[in-house]
Amino acid sequence: MADSIVNKKSVCIITGATKGLGKAITSNLAKELPKGSLFILLARSQDLLDRISSQVKENDGIESVSMPFDQSCADGETNKKMLQDALAKAGVAVSQYEQAILINNAGTLDHLDYSRNLDRLDVSTEYFKTNLSGCITLTATFLQVFRAPDVKTRVVVNISSLAAISPMKSWLLYCMAKAAREMMMKIVAAEEENTRTLNYAPGPLVTEMTTTASDKTQDPELRKWFTEQIEKKSLVECDDSAQKLIAILRKNTFENALHIDYYDEI
Amino acid sequence: MADSIVNKKSVCIITGATKGLGKAITSNLAKELPKGSLFILLARSQDLLDRISSQVKENDGIESVSMPFDQSCADGETNKKMLQDALAKAGVAVSQYEQAILINNAGTLDHLDYSRNLDRLDVSTEYFKTNLSGCITLTATFLQVFRAPDVKTRVVVNISSLAAISPMKSWLLYCMAKAAREMMMKIVAAEEENTRTLNYAPGPLVTEMTTTASDKTQDPELRKWFTEQIEKKSLVECDDSAQKLIAILRKNTFENALHIDYYDEI
Repeated sequence: MADSIVNKKSVCIITGATKGLGKAITSNLAKELPKGSLFILLARSQDLLDRISSQVKENDGIESVSMPFDQSCADGETNKKMLQDALAKAGVAVSQYEQAILINNAGTLDHLDYSRNLDRLDVSTEYFKTNLSGCITLTATFLQVFRAPDVKTRVVVNISSLAAISPMKSWLLYCMAKAAREMMMKIVAAEEENTRTLNYAPGPLVTEMTTTASDKTQDPELRKWFTEQIEKKSLVECDDSAQKLIAILRKNTFENALHIDYYDEI
Repeated sequence: MADSIVNKKSVCIITGATKGLGKAITSNLAKELPKGSLFILLARSQDLLDRISSQVKENDGIESVSMPFDQSCADGETNKKMLQDALAKAGVAVSQYEQAILINNAGTLDHLDYSRNLDRLDVSTEYFKTNLSGCITLTATFLQVFRAPDVKTRVVVNISSLAAISPMKSWLLYCMAKAAREMMMKIVAAEEENTRTLNYAPGPLVTEMTTTASDKTQDPELRKWFTEQIEKKSLVECDDSAQKLIAILRKNTFENALHIDYYDEI
């Protein structure tokens, strides 16, 4: 299918690329994108980045560079330099790619307390800085750097959650940030030409974040639910969820900014 | 109707109480609540607060105190002291009231630029600090200070917008914050007993904010829409929108955390 997102020679930027779902998306997508594609992998740990970047390059004709990236300090100027340095490191120009993909995967799950206890201004401010502001600035820089006529199409994927549309007790900050990020995909889709956006809820995954959820969620029912999923081994494997995302991108019939869950038919 | 929110002796806290919709809600609700009710009016300007507070006290049996409040600096400890000082100033105890109402009206409309240009981390962070974090911490303090058995029921109203559910070009931060604040009302309703929450979208109002929208919105279509509404005088008067909100509270049949627009049938 000529129209498929995964058939185009792409530059693909992934945040939080070293662990969990980010790592799974990276390694699965590296097997899928055509030769000549470039991965720009972003995460905090250079050590872990080096490992996943080497793994990506094992795919014939796929290039990969990695850059240390902390979303809580992601100002536009820093982002721009980082992306330009990444392109220079790979020895390529933006115009070599048909398509640019940004996968906003990085995010934190923290302060899993009831709303009535979330009375510290610094705590909420820092949370939104990392999970909203840093994601906004990186997306802005992405849209500035990869644009027509150099790049024909762009794809922005927000790794969302059921929590974006369904309130979860003692998860106020996480739910608010996910709801806000879904709105962001709607607005980017409305504002930008030739840009596809998607809100993908990856299901309850086998990740560190799920362990945090089962350890630290204040609401006893929700905490129990996570603990039981871990015990019953009924969580979704990151590779399976990454494959589902790739299937959605391959089919490429989703409405822009739609919320699609791992469990949804596509 | 015994069940009506506006028939209960209440302590009612309103942010941004000196201007526009906040002022209109204050003055209209002061005519509606039963004798013995207390208004705690919050805003940045003590001068404007004094004026509206005097006006509230003209209603027979209605008390009013005002406290300077800047939502961008609203930490839990400061909020708690402020509410306790307000109660002391009025010479009352929490247990004197059947019901406590919080109207989260304060908010800003700023940086009305396309997503691709919003690449400054400090700008987004400051915006969410004022419009999300400060609203979260005040709501948390409200839930701590006004609780059972002292106060039987609580009502939290979020002044929302069509922008919470409908993406608007070049209004990224505003839309994201409004979407996140609607989620907040859902979570508070799920977490708290005897608490009613509402997301009220007041319609396009005759306010300073609408002038800002027509002056500063980058998207030409959206800017034109606001300019035309101003020229045609087809905007909603703040008093009319405040009356609609009061009608919703009077009827008190809304589902918790529902998004209700000025133009909706109730």
